[in-house]
Amino acid sequence: MSYTQIKLDIADGIATVTLHRPEKMNAFTRVMMAEIIDAIDTTDADDRVRAVIVTGAGERAFCAGADLTPPKNQDGSGGHVFSDPNPVDDLSDSRVRDGGGRLVLRLFNSQKPLIGACNGVAVGVGATMQLPFDMRLCSDNARFGFVFARRGITPEAASSWFLPRLVGMQTALEWCMTGRIFDANEALDRGLVRSVHSPNTLMDAARGLAREIADNTSAVSVAMTRAMLWRLSATEHPMMAHRIDSRAIYRLSRSQDAREGIASFLEKRPPDYPDTVGADMPDFYPWWDEPDYR
Amino acid sequence: MSYTQIKLDIADGIATVTLHRPEKMNAFTRVMMAEIIDAIDTTDADDRVRAVIVTGAGERAFCAGADLTPPKNQDGSGGHVFSDPNPVDDLSDSRVRDGGGRLVLRLFNSQKPLIGACNGVAVGVGATMQLPFDMRLCSDNARFGFVFARRGITPEAASSWFLPRLVGMQTALEWCMTGRIFDANEALDRGLVRSVHSPNTLMDAARGLAREIADNTSAVSVAMTRAMLWRLSATEHPMMAHRIDSRAIYRLSRSQDAREGIASFLEKRPPDYPDTVGADMPDFYPWWDEPDYR
Amino acid sequence: MSYTQIKLDIADGIATVTLHRPEKMNAFTRVMMAEIIDAIDTTDADDRVRAVIVTGAGERAFCAGADLTPPKNQDGSGGHVFSDPNPVDDLSDSRVRDGGGRLVLRLFNSQKPLIGACNGVAVGVGATMQLPFDMRLCSDNARFGFVFARRGITPEAASSWFLPRLVGMQTALEWCMTGRIFDANEALDRGLVRSVHSPNTLMDAARGLAREIADNTSAVSVAMTRAMLWRLSATEHPMMAHRIDSRAIYRLSRSQDAREGIASFLEKRPPDYPDTVGADMPDFYPWWDEPDYR
Repeated sequence: MSYTQIKLDIADGIATVTLHRPEKMNAFTRVMMAEIIDAIDTTDADDRVRAVIVTGAGERAFCAGADLTPPKNQDGSGGHVFSDPNPVDDLSDSRVRDGGGRLVLRLFNSQKPLIGACNGVAVGVGATMQLPFDMRLCSDNARFGFVFARRGITPEAASSWFLPRLVGMQTALEWCMTGRIFDANEALDRGLVRSVHSPNTLMDAARGLAREIADNTSAVSVAMTRAMLWRLSATEHPMMAHRIDSRAIYRLSRSQDAREGIASFLEKRPPDYPDTVGADMPDFYPWWDEPDYR
Repeated sequence: MSYTQIKLDIADGIATVTLHRPEKMNAFTRVMMAEIIDAIDTTDADDRVRAVIVTGAGERAFCAGADLTPPKNQDGSGGHVFSDPNPVDDLSDSRVRDGGGRLVLRLFNSQKPLIGACNGVAVGVGATMQLPFDMRLCSDNARFGFVFARRGITPEAASSWFLPRLVGMQTALEWCMTGRIFDANEALDRGLVRSVHSPNTLMDAARGLAREIADNTSAVSVAMTRAMLWRLSATEHPMMAHRIDSRAIYRLSRSQDAREGIASFLEKRPPDYPDTVGADMPDFYPWWDEPDYR
Repeated sequence: MSYTQIKLDIADGIATVTLHRPEKMNAFTRVMMAEIIDAIDTTDADDRVRAVIVTGAGERAFCAGADLTPPKNQDGSGGHVFSDPNPVDDLSDSRVRDGGGRLVLRLFNSQKPLIGACNGVAVGVGATMQLPFDMRLCSDNARFGFVFARRGITPEAASSWFLPRLVGMQTALEWCMTGRIFDANEALDRGLVRSVHSPNTLMDAARGLAREIADNTSAVSVAMTRAMLWRLSATEHPMMAHRIDSRAIYRLSRSQDAREGIASFLEKRPPDYPDTVGADMPDFYPWWDEPDYR
């Protein structure tokens, strides 16, 4: 797939997805949605990729939200997110599905760690698409806004599920009920981002974190860890976590990666893990049935 | 309904509920419970009300907990919360229901944002009734206490559900297991309150936050946001949030409020939203069946 | 039961469990697992015990993780945690069960408050076994690491369920995906521990917290509070919490402890609670069916 609204670069085990409509402050469209989803399909399928950084092109914006310009094409496919030339009554119809939600559900299922490098303005879906990232860094000129109530709509992209997990209920409610724009320091203070950087050191910091994962950990371990933490933390009792991690420890402790992990640790040398996500995930993965949209 | 233990004032789109037994440090009774519930029924039904502030009368206390004085009337209705002249064996009997719990479940279902302005001592149900508020401010002389274990009883008002969502498990456990009183700074540091104010600026700060919501957001958007965040964050998978917010975006993006939200944004002018909670909530709201007490 | 890898001391209402293999940095074995479980059975059954402190012997380590030395006995029972001379295919077989998970599920069901006093290095299961403690203190020389991804395995001991409840999703993901070691200050800053102490004041601080509980609260109240907060916070709607705490308030407000709690409060004297966990838990406790491993 050749991309028109994002760029995808892969080098030294790190993939970088860049939202790339700098003249539009990287505003979100259905084309961009499809391209990011395709990029994540690519990074999951490429065993060389150990971590994915997501950032925006230019110095002003990560993503200024949904593109509100009218569609250019007769089928509504131009740029406008809300338009729909053939409205439907059945709300379970897949045409009702929010594009931000389709994207975050794909990010939720990424097998590689997702690291956000928010390089400027991030409002609306530009903010909510970052919530399923595993770690979020931002530049000191970043601005965030869950502005939906100021536009007459509601939080989307499943952010009602993700945001309270990251910043607690009180902050999530205040940000979404006031819809106000807030700065990088508030994002750090409330736990939305893990660290704030000058614009010219942001990408180095994100790459440093990606490197730390790529150079020291097993890809299979990290893919399992990602699914386990996001999914098992939301269950009602720790027994489900015990069932799954018992199976994971049982299978993986017999893996080549576990042998290499312990050997490299005892020999005090960098590890060289042979197993891959493509070939060596444990036999019971995935252990869940993904719910359908309906 | 004419109130005897609270006051309800509505002005400029903001309702203020004042617990009003200053000679008793606003101690909680069944009468007060019924009056607050009635006030919330009123603020929900009044489309002029865009936010609700809850505070206590006087300078000492928000609410000193359940009134422990003996009942005055033969049927036990006087003031005493724990008394029951006709004890029942069946614990699913509705007479077993905790009064603080009846109150917080009504607050949980408020369609208007709830802002706490805690002006002094808040212990027992005086602390737990604040947990379903969306945002909590307090004065620097506020004192909080989840004192139940020091009285031989347990946390109530569904606080075992609410408190960890606000302050995390470790803090919730320590506050409830020690039962100790703590001050405004600790409440701020652990995330129970969002901000601390001098006593004479507390109400202005609460009104400022209410104004920010009232002047900038759609009432329908905020009512939907409130239900979505509190309810969907507690589900096991983000798909349920995706289903609901897809429907919300689909319906509301065609609303008059969405047109006004985008128009006022593009024209850089204050919005004037026409839709109301009374008439314009989306057709699929409420999307849930409220569980019964049993 | 006479212990070989831990010590259990009970004095003045406080039990102290000390992981005791100082020559091995208190590395975890199946023997240690069984002994801690037995100790918790003991502290639960002993009505004199009002709080349990868990710490490690020596000045270097709380617990350096699973003992990786090869088993000494033919049946694999020596020290090695991962070994299994008779591997099984059926992952629901109880032989697949993770030892750390067996331990934390027992800790999860403790009726007495658990206070961690982490006196040094805590990595792997040495870190994850602390998560079901109610409160965690550490010395300023403590070091933590959820190092699993650096060993080719995954987080265990149901830590995917516990860790995000304590530190939020972002921190949990970063710690588990990088597997890096972090210090006491970071543990405090992110909310893993509630306080940091010098090595020679750590145990006094832990005992002070245990004393505060033992001297001021009802044992029945605290046992109920523990089960309510850990379990009810994970349900989907506050109604379940309302059902349980209504029953708890209804039963316990008629107890001897409630009478003593209110009397001692009104008389401004220390309480002397007569009820015990052994004899006086409310009739509907436990209100849940514990899920099986399968």
